[in-house]
Amino acid sequence: MSKGLKIVTIGGGSSYTPELIEGFINYHEELPVSEIWLVDIEAGKEKLEIVGDLARRMVEKAGVKIDVHLTLDRKKALKGADYVTTQLRVGQLAARALDEKIPLKHGVIGQETNGPGGLFKAFRTIPIILDIAREMEEVCPDAWLINFTNPAGMVTEAVLRHSNITKVIGLCNVPIGMERGVADLMNVEPSRVRIDFAGLNHMVYGLDVFVDGKSVKDQIINLITDPAKAVTMKNIHAMGWEPEFLRALNLFPCPYHNYYYKTGDVLAQELKDAEKGETRAEVVQKLEEGLFELYKDKGLAIKPPQLEERGGAYYSDAAVRLICSMHSDKCDIQAVNTINHGAIEGIPYGSAIEISCVITKDGPKPINVGELPVAIRGLIQQIKSFERVSIEAAISGNYDTALLAMTINPLVPSDRVAKLILDEMLEAHKDFLPQFFEKKELQDNLS
Amino acid sequence: MSKGLKIVTIGGGSSYTPELIEGFINYHEELPVSEIWLVDIEAGKEKLEIVGDLARRMVEKAGVKIDVHLTLDRKKALKGADYVTTQLRVGQLAARALDEKIPLKHGVIGQETNGPGGLFKAFRTIPIILDIAREMEEVCPDAWLINFTNPAGMVTEAVLRHSNITKVIGLCNVPIGMERGVADLMNVEPSRVRIDFAGLNHMVYGLDVFVDGKSVKDQIINLITDPAKAVTMKNIHAMGWEPEFLRALNLFPCPYHNYYYKTGDVLAQELKDAEKGETRAEVVQKLEEGLFELYKDKGLAIKPPQLEERGGAYYSDAAVRLICSMHSDKCDIQAVNTINHGAIEGIPYGSAIEISCVITKDGPKPINVGELPVAIRGLIQQIKSFERVSIEAAISGNYDTALLAMTINPLVPSDRVAKLILDEMLEAHKDFLPQFFEKKELQDNLS
Amino acid sequence: MSKGLKIVTIGGGSSYTPELIEGFINYHEELPVSEIWLVDIEAGKEKLEIVGDLARRMVEKAGVKIDVHLTLDRKKALKGADYVTTQLRVGQLAARALDEKIPLKHGVIGQETNGPGGLFKAFRTIPIILDIAREMEEVCPDAWLINFTNPAGMVTEAVLRHSNITKVIGLCNVPIGMERGVADLMNVEPSRVRIDFAGLNHMVYGLDVFVDGKSVKDQIINLITDPAKAVTMKNIHAMGWEPEFLRALNLFPCPYHNYYYKTGDVLAQELKDAEKGETRAEVVQKLEEGLFELYKDKGLAIKPPQLEERGGAYYSDAAVRLICSMHSDKCDIQAVNTINHGAIEGIPYGSAIEISCVITKDGPKPINVGELPVAIRGLIQQIKSFERVSIEAAISGNYDTALLAMTINPLVPSDRVAKLILDEMLEAHKDFLPQFFEKKELQDNLS
Amino acid sequence: MSKGLKIVTIGGGSSYTPELIEGFINYHEELPVSEIWLVDIEAGKEKLEIVGDLARRMVEKAGVKIDVHLTLDRKKALKGADYVTTQLRVGQLAARALDEKIPLKHGVIGQETNGPGGLFKAFRTIPIILDIAREMEEVCPDAWLINFTNPAGMVTEAVLRHSNITKVIGLCNVPIGMERGVADLMNVEPSRVRIDFAGLNHMVYGLDVFVDGKSVKDQIINLITDPAKAVTMKNIHAMGWEPEFLRALNLFPCPYHNYYYKTGDVLAQELKDAEKGETRAEVVQKLEEGLFELYKDKGLAIKPPQLEERGGAYYSDAAVRLICSMHSDKCDIQAVNTINHGAIEGIPYGSAIEISCVITKDGPKPINVGELPVAIRGLIQQIKSFERVSIEAAISGNYDTALLAMTINPLVPSDRVAKLILDEMLEAHKDFLPQFFEKKELQDNLS
Ligand SMILES: [Mn+2]
Ligand SMILES: [Mn+2]
Ligand SMILES: [Mn+2]
Ligand SMILES: [Mn+2]
Repeated sequence: MSKGLKIVTIGGGSSYTPELIEGFINYHEELPVSEIWLVDIEAGKEKLEIVGDLARRMVEKAGVKIDVHLTLDRKKALKGADYVTTQLRVGQLAARALDEKIPLKHGVIGQETNGPGGLFKAFRTIPIILDIAREMEEVCPDAWLINFTNPAGMVTEAVLRHSNITKVIGLCNVPIGMERGVADLMNVEPSRVRIDFAGLNHMVYGLDVFVDGKSVKDQIINLITDPAKAVTMKNIHAMGWEPEFLRALNLFPCPYHNYYYKTGDVLAQELKDAEKGETRAEVVQKLEEGLFELYKDKGLAIKPPQLEERGGAYYSDAAVRLICSMHSDKCDIQAVNTINHGAIEGIPYGSAIEISCVITKDGPKPINVGELPVAIRGLIQQIKSFERVSIEAAISGNYDTALLAMTINPLVPSDRVAKLILDEMLEAHKDFLPQFFEKKELQDNLS
Repeated sequence: MSKGLKIVTIGGGSSYTPELIEGFINYHEELPVSEIWLVDIEAGKEKLEIVGDLARRMVEKAGVKIDVHLTLDRKKALKGADYVTTQLRVGQLAARALDEKIPLKHGVIGQETNGPGGLFKAFRTIPIILDIAREMEEVCPDAWLINFTNPAGMVTEAVLRHSNITKVIGLCNVPIGMERGVADLMNVEPSRVRIDFAGLNHMVYGLDVFVDGKSVKDQIINLITDPAKAVTMKNIHAMGWEPEFLRALNLFPCPYHNYYYKTGDVLAQELKDAEKGETRAEVVQKLEEGLFELYKDKGLAIKPPQLEERGGAYYSDAAVRLICSMHSDKCDIQAVNTINHGAIEGIPYGSAIEISCVITKDGPKPINVGELPVAIRGLIQQIKSFERVSIEAAISGNYDTALLAMTINPLVPSDRVAKLILDEMLEAHKDFLPQFFEKKELQDNLS
Repeated sequence: MSKGLKIVTIGGGSSYTPELIEGFINYHEELPVSEIWLVDIEAGKEKLEIVGDLARRMVEKAGVKIDVHLTLDRKKALKGADYVTTQLRVGQLAARALDEKIPLKHGVIGQETNGPGGLFKAFRTIPIILDIAREMEEVCPDAWLINFTNPAGMVTEAVLRHSNITKVIGLCNVPIGMERGVADLMNVEPSRVRIDFAGLNHMVYGLDVFVDGKSVKDQIINLITDPAKAVTMKNIHAMGWEPEFLRALNLFPCPYHNYYYKTGDVLAQELKDAEKGETRAEVVQKLEEGLFELYKDKGLAIKPPQLEERGGAYYSDAAVRLICSMHSDKCDIQAVNTINHGAIEGIPYGSAIEISCVITKDGPKPINVGELPVAIRGLIQQIKSFERVSIEAAISGNYDTALLAMTINPLVPSDRVAKLILDEMLEAHKDFLPQFFEKKELQDNLS
Repeated sequence: MSKGLKIVTIGGGSSYTPELIEGFINYHEELPVSEIWLVDIEAGKEKLEIVGDLARRMVEKAGVKIDVHLTLDRKKALKGADYVTTQLRVGQLAARALDEKIPLKHGVIGQETNGPGGLFKAFRTIPIILDIAREMEEVCPDAWLINFTNPAGMVTEAVLRHSNITKVIGLCNVPIGMERGVADLMNVEPSRVRIDFAGLNHMVYGLDVFVDGKSVKDQIINLITDPAKAVTMKNIHAMGWEPEFLRALNLFPCPYHNYYYKTGDVLAQELKDAEKGETRAEVVQKLEEGLFELYKDKGLAIKPPQLEERGGAYYSDAAVRLICSMHSDKCDIQAVNTINHGAIEGIPYGSAIEISCVITKDGPKPINVGELPVAIRGLIQQIKSFERVSIEAAISGNYDTALLAMTINPLVPSDRVAKLILDEMLEAHKDFLPQFFEKKELQDNLS
């Protein structure tokens, strides 16, 4: 195998791309990438070119031999790929803004991944990802699909259940962020931290937390009750925790758990932000504009530090570290979204879970968890129910199923309000939801 | 076995007792009861005497040979019992009023069975029921414990997990009420209706609905979207359902599902009721006063029709029908709360479920369900998680565990609000919660 | 539904048919059958006519209005059927004789259902049954398929996994025979006996045994250790049991368990029988010849009592009782082969099991069993493994898979001997095994 | 933690001990052992001294600072231990000889681990191991118990189910031997080989086999059908496999699978060996005598190469590698016996399995397997059923349970023969089986 690896990145015009490029540059010795194909759609052509140019400058400055290709022809790009990464965003940030704002009008958190907003992100995204999966079956059946696109849990499960691609991994920066957060709190090198992760995407818990193999869970639980010490993300308000609650929970929650264990308080905060025109989508839109201005600068040949404000911290690390371990059969431990196969009791055998895995050439192998602590089974199951009904609606375009998904989401207060939000969002996102508005040929794809 | 059966009813001074007595009278030929022991505590002595006198008048008028005993000596009553029924209410309706009103002050539904109110009812009740179970082990180890006391699901599970009594059944009038409701809607005799029930107490679904063995589920689903046709109960506001939601759910929900699928709307209604001094507890308190006035009338020797307003419709039927089928090994189908043993996938093996069972002399045998429909697994699991953590807190009296239970309840919006409600309710119910306030000897009872 | 029921019986020329006819006559009031179609193949035409004539005489003599049709056109017969019963035997008793004798030559019990013989019976039968299932999908998709053909467990599972027919039930006379056996031993009416059955076809255990709802398991276990009191069948040598073994097993085994718990002793006996030309196939061949002679007698218009020697005792009762309970939604309890759906822990969710069910219009509903006693899980799993690999080989015609099935059968002592038996039997049954000898189109049918 | 580790080895007088000592010497830099306590019983005092002296000479020659203590006072030795290893043999090789020979007299393979012989080894060993566990609870509750004593699967499960010690690992040299065998066959360094192991002790399969992360399973399967290339052990006759069988099985079997897939052939060979006085026990007895003669030589200060004939190849490596990885939280992959917790579907949650694990300071963490291939579920379940009933009999000393265990063993042909073997072996091993012959106080220890 003298030939290097071919990487294909769908949604290559994303502002995140320089992260990824930086990763491939840093790991180049270990991971012999020879081609990176950045793919985007007509509407994203301009961004693709800006980002692509920066990528080429970065590669050149680093002195590594990687060919960067830019294209709108996805299938051509996919041909013979070794790894396909997806970071596309249908409807761009404008769509995300609607995902957040419409529910808020009805007194409901939008939550762009596991909430009403995430439901619509799934509706817009899943059909596209399944198209990609079908193309991969044809032109690169042995490639791994590494999906960053949210809602990453649902997207992974949709591929597992509704395509023939089994080599799919969903990747999120939450687990790596939690490990770095612990390293900071404990003042140790990240490599000395290990967390036993289990749950779903954006609904993952640290079952235990180790430094050098010794549990420091109790210390972490004590520390993070203080909002100032919260392990969180750019896009989530850190609020701390009631200490007695967290002690009894006896787990290390992820930042997204704020939405579910502090729903009322997060809602109040989001309503305030919205009034000031500071929903996360709005904040990010401004950040992105700034980033693209920077990217255009021909003098720039590294990832600009401002990108870290964007929220995708460690994506580069997470992605390249994963591909690297697979390529070299490293058998180290990383948390990814993969098929359950009984690793977590009570979650369906064929469903996607987020879990600590041994990373091998043959893919991620979950470390067995068994029964989850009693207190968290309900919430995890509820999100999984929501995910599965959402996927069904995303593929079938069935209105009733969509209403069912919206109603059973734990952020939504009633079937009545669910219908109000659903109707308004369907109308708002109409252009990106052919399955709900065109003839229902797609419905046949649902088994 | 020429000797007749000995029935012991704990909480015998309850306003429901005449229901039960009427049942034993009606089924006397089939079910040879010779003694009924009505047991209560010192504080309930007066009511016990009023109800006991009425019971004796009813038996006499009916001309059946049943000795009605009244006693405050529970252990003496239990000795040699064949069936023990529990319908006690620790703290009476005054406690229930607090269960409903305190959460409402914080913008949260009280829900006296699976909500914050139910949590405290469990705290007050479970230790008493476990005491009864321990006495039964000693003086009537072969008797069946048939529990009506709410939260009946948690009480049943507590007995299963924390006593040596395995012959325990939780009984609720919701399933029988749903069957009668269908009979009314379809205008057929109740005996022609059969529902495949599965779920938890007050969280039970009709998976299918039959008349003469043919499914009428679609018709029922269409009918009950109309609030005027809702199959509901005296204590629950019927609100109808969004038709598309119910079609996609494709199940026959129980009246209590209003709390979970229409949380916002029910809350609004309850806040209104509370303002008018018309919480359910307050309404019932007035009803009860009226009932006891009636019961005192020496001329009354039948169950007064006004009892039906009380909310326990069909309890008599449900209870006596169950005991009767067990006694005669009738192998008919009734829905009760019993141990899962894998009948419903995804609910713990040793947990209590509410499910259609074949009723034999050897106890209820669940008809296997397997996997629940995807959409409802989450909510059912969440209530089960809540139930199990609640039981743990009820026995241990551990504050942190209590806060965890309160926070994971789906009606409660955050750990912060959970703590406010918890602290206020602990204070309000102090007298009935020795496990939280006295030295923690009880804690040792938790395995 | 003024029109009566249409019954179709595939393999209508079987010597068992008069049993079935008698059943439909006896239950005619309750079960309004108007047409019975007896279907057979060209090679069985003569027998079909003999049996068909007898059937008509029986119906006429009984004075019931049932039209008996005889045909070789299966698809025509199936059209619009309500219940399809299958009792076909590919290769007739001559094939069964080979199933028994070839293994014996290699020192191995043939066992025509779960042994090496059963493997070849499955190879000959399953493709035909799947053809029938496919025809049913087309011309009578709402009919129930009630299969009597052995190996009934494998046949049922093959239909469940490899056709779109879900309304399939496997029926065996072992459970009803065990109930009658208990009735005899306890000297009570059969209707007073109930057995909790669980396991696989010809590998079913009585988990408990009741008379009037009270367990008599201990008495039965003591009684049947005596060979003279064995509850057995015409085709199985009763040998009694070591009392200490059976007490520790603490279950009521079925007659076929002799093959697995007494392998050495049964083998010795079968070798003796074979020497005398008295294998079961040979005995039955003679019986059958005699039966057909009787059937030809135009003066005969009832089921001749000699049929009971044949081994199929109670088939009529079992079959007609089942259809009758389904037709009237009787909700009584009968043991049949149906899909597991988690009723028995540890057996695959989609596999066929033999279990006590509530019989409804909607089909049999297993009464939940949960975990089997530890001691029997292994053997049951081993037979299920054998069944599943056998089905795979029966459909694919793959030699390696066939050898795997033969080797893992608990009666077969090694891969080497398995190969000897397999090769000799493949050659002997060549004419009935196109999937192993013709081009492998069939292989594609295996999902 | 300036203080080094304390290792306690029960059965320290075993001929294997020099293996272990060599391991601790070789890994001393990485694994700072400061004390090794060799413990034995009065009857083994002489051997203990011979072996202990050799151990001291080895340590001294190697120039590492490890104190070797010899003692008959087990509890004193255990105090404050970090790792306890058990390699005791109740009744010595004389007992093993009976385990092999008595069954053979009745035409049954003895099989000293999962066969009738193993049943009696379990009877003799499990009570002693549970005594050790109870002492550990008292004097070294944080130590890890690493058991080498056969039947290692049953011993591990007995500790898991019948003691409070959860930090127990069963260790066998079969997995490491299979990896070395593959390395030899593929002519690569052992470190490049990885096998996905799953199953039970001496009933473990390689689900897949990798060199540098790429599967070589097909090649291995082809190679090992040749008896000359069998991956086997000193104590097992290699016989090769029918190629079609192994291809369909599509797994890498362990050497002990010869007993179950080639029962007849192994039995024939063992009968021949027995005639020549060459049962494995007899061969090993001679080897051991020779070894102890060598050990006595004061000039010997290394492990003598002749020890490798003894059958315990790689034990040193396996044991020390395991302890080393735990001590340093190495997170590498090794196959050990540990609690299932759902890692393998269909095996009880609380049972011991043999499986590839990530080895951490917190113990071994199984890599999830999910459902086993259909063809092997039966045999694995059957051995597990046998193991569990055997453990119950070993603790209770109940004769009936013992007969049940013997009868359900797949090597035993009938309940009748089981009883013959059982009775003769009980008599032969009487002195080591107080639970079967003395008053039944022990029975109370069984939960
Ligand atoms: Mn994410
Ligand atoms: Mn109720
Ligand atoms: Mn049969
Ligand atoms: Mn071993």
